[in-house]
Amino acid sequence: MGKGKAKRGIPSKGEDFNSWYPFIVEAAELVDKRYPIKGMDVWRPYGWKAMKLIDQLTHHEMERTGHEEVNFPLLIPENLLDKENALVAKLKLAREEGVDPDDLRIEVEEGGFKKEVYWVKHAGENELEIPMFLRPTSETAMYTMFPLWIRSHKDLPMKIYQMVNTFRYETKQTRSFIRVREIHFFEAHTAHVDEECASRQIQQDLEIVDNLMHDLCLPVIKAKRPVWDTFPGAWYTIAIDAIMPNGRTLQVASCHHYRDQWAKAFDVKYEDIDAKQQYVHQTTYGMSERLLGAIVGMHGDDDGLIMPPAIAPFQVVICPMIRKNSEVDTVAKSEEIANVLRKSGIRVKVDSRDIHPGQKYYDWEIKGVPLRLDIGPRDIDNNTAFAAKRTGGKEPLPMDDIVNECRRVLEEISNELRKRSQIHTQDVVVPLIDLDNVEDGKIYELAFDGTDSHAEQIEKTTGLSFLGDATEPYADERPCFMSGKLTTRRVLLAKTY
Amino acid sequence: MGKGKAKRGIPSKGEDFNSWYPFIVEAAELVDKRYPIKGMDVWRPYGWKAMKLIDQLTHHEMERTGHEEVNFPLLIPENLLDKENALVAKLKLAREEGVDPDDLRIEVEEGGFKKEVYWVKHAGENELEIPMFLRPTSETAMYTMFPLWIRSHKDLPMKIYQMVNTFRYETKQTRSFIRVREIHFFEAHTAHVDEECASRQIQQDLEIVDNLMHDLCLPVIKAKRPVWDTFPGAWYTIAIDAIMPNGRTLQVASCHHYRDQWAKAFDVKYEDIDAKQQYVHQTTYGMSERLLGAIVGMHGDDDGLIMPPAIAPFQVVICPMIRKNSEVDTVAKSEEIANVLRKSGIRVKVDSRDIHPGQKYYDWEIKGVPLRLDIGPRDIDNNTAFAAKRTGGKEPLPMDDIVNECRRVLEEISNELRKRSQIHTQDVVVPLIDLDNVEDGKIYELAFDGTDSHAEQIEKTTGLSFLGDATEPYADERPCFMSGKLTTRRVLLAKTY
Repeated sequence: MGKGKAKRGIPSKGEDFNSWYPFIVEAAELVDKRYPIKGMDVWRPYGWKAMKLIDQLTHHEMERTGHEEVNFPLLIPENLLDKENALVAKLKLAREEGVDPDDLRIEVEEGGFKKEVYWVKHAGENELEIPMFLRPTSETAMYTMFPLWIRSHKDLPMKIYQMVNTFRYETKQTRSFIRVREIHFFEAHTAHVDEECASRQIQQDLEIVDNLMHDLCLPVIKAKRPVWDTFPGAWYTIAIDAIMPNGRTLQVASCHHYRDQWAKAFDVKYEDIDAKQQYVHQTTYGMSERLLGAIVGMHGDDDGLIMPPAIAPFQVVICPMIRKNSEVDTVAKSEEIANVLRKSGIRVKVDSRDIHPGQKYYDWEIKGVPLRLDIGPRDIDNNTAFAAKRTGGKEPLPMDDIVNECRRVLEEISNELRKRSQIHTQDVVVPLIDLDNVEDGKIYELAFDGTDSHAEQIEKTTGLSFLGDATEPYADERPCFMSGKLTTRRVLLAKTY
Repeated sequence: MGKGKAKRGIPSKGEDFNSWYPFIVEAAELVDKRYPIKGMDVWRPYGWKAMKLIDQLTHHEMERTGHEEVNFPLLIPENLLDKENALVAKLKLAREEGVDPDDLRIEVEEGGFKKEVYWVKHAGENELEIPMFLRPTSETAMYTMFPLWIRSHKDLPMKIYQMVNTFRYETKQTRSFIRVREIHFFEAHTAHVDEECASRQIQQDLEIVDNLMHDLCLPVIKAKRPVWDTFPGAWYTIAIDAIMPNGRTLQVASCHHYRDQWAKAFDVKYEDIDAKQQYVHQTTYGMSERLLGAIVGMHGDDDGLIMPPAIAPFQVVICPMIRKNSEVDTVAKSEEIANVLRKSGIRVKVDSRDIHPGQKYYDWEIKGVPLRLDIGPRDIDNNTAFAAKRTGGKEPLPMDDIVNECRRVLEEISNELRKRSQIHTQDVVVPLIDLDNVEDGKIYELAFDGTDSHAEQIEKTTGLSFLGDATEPYADERPCFMSGKLTTRRVLLAKTY
């Protein structure tokens, strides 16, 4: 390890990702993990700003697609869970017995959720009559209200969303953004007149995912989860998995088509055009701060983070060269340039600290500012600013056209991150040849049309998990890896977070 | 009551404010109170949008004054309270005994907070080793981290804020926005090198309050609370009370100067310029959704809300006159005008429902949209839109200059709301003449420089509470109402929410 590296003290990302990641989230001042509850970090200004910029992209997509923002209470009374538990139990039994869930009558059963939530059973000095829990997600809270809001087909589609804190009593090892106990959560919930309209919503959700992933420059896999990994109460689940540098996948978003299953449990009906009562068909779409975890993991390098320009708290940092006794005021020139950029909506920071430039570079490289502009007396003479891209490469930019030049370079940086993501995906996703020879750090694809027990056999032998059917199947029919039956189903296998 | 009123079913605000208020918050679709936990309402899209626009004004002020946004965990382990409880107990005793708190050594005592919080003592199927509570405010959580972040005078001032959900186990009757159990909370926390710098922060906070109240058109009283009503651990508290239509006051914000009292409890020190360790001096500034409660209460009338233009989710609603078989497309013209307005940043809604105009007017009046533009075939012929101000008054606006015209009229509406607030304040705030003859719905001012027992006597006799010393004292000296001693202290008395 060179002298520079040792001084920096950043673990090598390539050699030891599991040390690099927790080091960098604190060194870049995204969060502070020293808060005395495990899995509940403090968001520091820089990290929170990045998260809010991600949220802003989401808000924008929600507005574009006609979703309205709401805000539900955090606490959910335990007795509201009864309907949900009955639904989950019913669907589980129906699946096991291979019958239509509507033919089943099932009473309340203790649901799995209860094991994963934080309970509020006391307030002040009193024990509460009805215990409450901190929402892990808001189906139960929301669908309690839906029947009050939906009366007629004119009220549909109803498309709402919220960004709130949710909680999960996580017993596995926690990791900033990736596995936490207080989650910064986005959830959209929609209700439609029928299954087809709900399916169109899922298509729209996937289009939103594409837009977001383009901005975040993230490589993802979209896959319809296998039945055993479908969200409770869902007809099907499409999950979006980010591909991490070590080849493991991180589920960063998911969409669920509920058909009318929840509606039946919560009695969410509407009067159709012929004055008949019908159950609504519902979908949900969820994301979380895992998006930031994927950004940290995927784009960073041995010098620190690399923030995609779309969500970089500072897209440009300007470092004036501070020279004692110089006649040229580089700080004033830097502020001037910064103001020009700010007026065009570019997020800029001027670092006029009187410290060694190397220290400044180090600080902003760790924080992943995509573009640095150095301005010294000679640059001012030349009427240029000297640009250093966080993704590599330097060039002088003419000051007279600095806004367009910065925009161009920022776009280049985004494209470079996208290219790297694409190359990484190509490197990591490989065809499955031999069950007994799977390599660490790879994601395997295979033609698959086998049974659940075939799938179980594959998972057990490889130690990998089924991500499910890729939303993009094979163009041609191929023999199923297990059964030999011809199929276009392209199934993905990975080690997951 | 006229026929129109009966049909509308809105209680009269002037005659029965206590019925009008809860009716209107639901009729205007700000919140839904049918969620099955008392004091925890569901924010509906319209109400949440208004709240977020208020938040946006606050974000803007925070950015202007160099505060950075953070986000702390919701849960606080019980043992962190020990330091806080010791502090509060110490200050209480010091006050009672009339001694310097630094001379006292006190061990942990059960604090008042414990009686007002929701407890998490269970997670999943486990009982937690250390119980946690849902934050009622974040001093304890934040000041646990401050010593880790503050090392040197170069780290000061530190100015951070967050907007989060906080919780209070409220045993009094709940009221939407005014007294709730899950609170949409804003809190700024600052640390400074000394008392004077912290005092300057309080001055800046009050300036921020003035800017916000100008935008919200709210009449407020700023008063330094009496000692017995000072926030635990604070040197002094300045509270901002909105004057409600019934003459009661609603505390909508407060600023606390902590001196170094919390710093001593939490050991928040810095190295000064002479390399000596010093305690920081701290302030906090808090606000909540009560701002929206004050807006609803103060500006509304018998037809519904009146939203101040600065935070109106829709500043302008355009109602095309829908005429069957008309050759003129009023809807297209309305959309065209709406787009022009939107491009200039004005928030606009086009209501092209094919229903009776009276129904549309009713809906938008209840929701308090400040400016309605009616566009019919004749208006299009005249190249005007017919404006109806929610505060009263109608006039045609030339379409060719619609942006400037709308801006002018919206400013007129803001000014009208401010004028009404000012008149209300003049009507309601009156000098105290006779302790035994206080009138309902009035706020009393008096010259006061008496003792705590004088104050207690006044509160008992009048049934009113001391708001404290107005930040604007009398210009001249006057005899104290109780002791006769000359003073410029102007003290306010009111019935409070």
